[in-house]
Amino acid sequence: MVSATDAPVIDLLGLIAAGELFAFETLARDSALANDLDAKAALGEIACREFGHFRDVVDRLRATGADADAVIAAYLPIMSEFHNKTAPRDLLEGLLKAYVGDGIAADFGREIAAFVDPETQQFLDGALSESGQAEFVVPYVQQALAEDPGAAGRLALWGRRLMGEALAQAQRVAADRPDLAELVVGGPDQSGAGLAEFAQMLARMTESHSQRMRNLGLAP
Amino acid sequence: MVSATDAPVIDLLGLIAAGELFAFETLARDSALANDLDAKAALGEIACREFGHFRDVVDRLRATGADADAVIAAYLPIMSEFHNKTAPRDLLEGLLKAYVGDGIAADFGREIAAFVDPETQQFLDGALSESGQAEFVVPYVQQALAEDPGAAGRLALWGRRLMGEALAQAQRVAADRPDLAELVVGGPDQSGAGLAEFAQMLARMTESHSQRMRNLGLAP
Repeated sequence: MVSATDAPVIDLLGLIAAGELFAFETLARDSALANDLDAKAALGEIACREFGHFRDVVDRLRATGADADAVIAAYLPIMSEFHNKTAPRDLLEGLLKAYVGDGIAADFGREIAAFVDPETQQFLDGALSESGQAEFVVPYVQQALAEDPGAAGRLALWGRRLMGEALAQAQRVAADRPDLAELVVGGPDQSGAGLAEFAQMLARMTESHSQRMRNLGLAP
Repeated sequence: MVSATDAPVIDLLGLIAAGELFAFETLARDSALANDLDAKAALGEIACREFGHFRDVVDRLRATGADADAVIAAYLPIMSEFHNKTAPRDLLEGLLKAYVGDGIAADFGREIAAFVDPETQQFLDGALSESGQAEFVVPYVQQALAEDPGAAGRLALWGRRLMGEALAQAQRVAADRPDLAELVVGGPDQSGAGLAEFAQMLARMTESHSQRMRNLGLAP
């Protein structure tokens, strides 16, 4: 079992912090795209909660003695690429991205918790536990689909693209950060789930994503 | 003296809430433009504090029994026009806008406080008192100017344009919302400062803006 100050755990926290920071920026951008005050307020609320998580992870990294800035900065290019490749063209795409992204992040947090020490596990439970905060998106998307059923095809494709890009960036993380990959898969010096269990984990996350798409009335 | 539930006071709170909401969105956008983590974290921090102020004003409006959504929504087009007309082309322009905008908003809050009831006055003191939060911008701008002295002319012009647009939108508010204008200037049924004092108020705000520009080493 790894300890709270092991390099792969620190690395993982850096990835999560970078993810939260970009979630904040993306949600705030969606707030700016929204015209009605309810949507603006809801998106701003979630954006600032994500920023609060970011700050919590930074504090946690500093508490472990890690150079939080360097650890997080290493993940900024990957996050930046993900968000540049999945820049929503309108509010509806932004809302779907918020919903899908929130879900993937929560799934990832749950899955990864199995591989870290109990202290980090407890921290992750706290920091990432507010899943479902993007649920407010569901009626918005459903209403938009009721008004314009033709949008369903475009949004279904968009959802697939989001999941595809998330998996592509996950592979890039695994290639660039072998420590982090070993935390999950295992390696010469480290126990882990093995590749079969890793594949199962991705399958579970993909199924969970498909379920969310179906909840919205979209083909997964 | 007006009371806390008078239309002009409610109107004023709507204007302030709309301002805070757009400040949040703009600052979050600047965070996304920034490449280094320090700037991202600082801008995100201020953005979320502005969002917190927005929420405080919404709560305050609801506590007075006002239809917060309608009151705030009335100001969204004006704020939207201001921000569309002053969209920063890069991070440096964004930072200057954050600094200048924060200053103008704080000045406005101080000036307007003289015309409202003590209860609203106290609320404004609390909600808008965190002025100077954009001070972190100063060393960034100074460093950028040290590295590229040629940017000073462009930024000085940018600062003038920001103040000019703020005054233009203030005039639009005064024309569109006579109740609010009368709160300051006075009217048939209401005491107020009169046009001469109103002109003085704008002169003080302009001088205060000029001083901030000089602090940055820019010609006002």
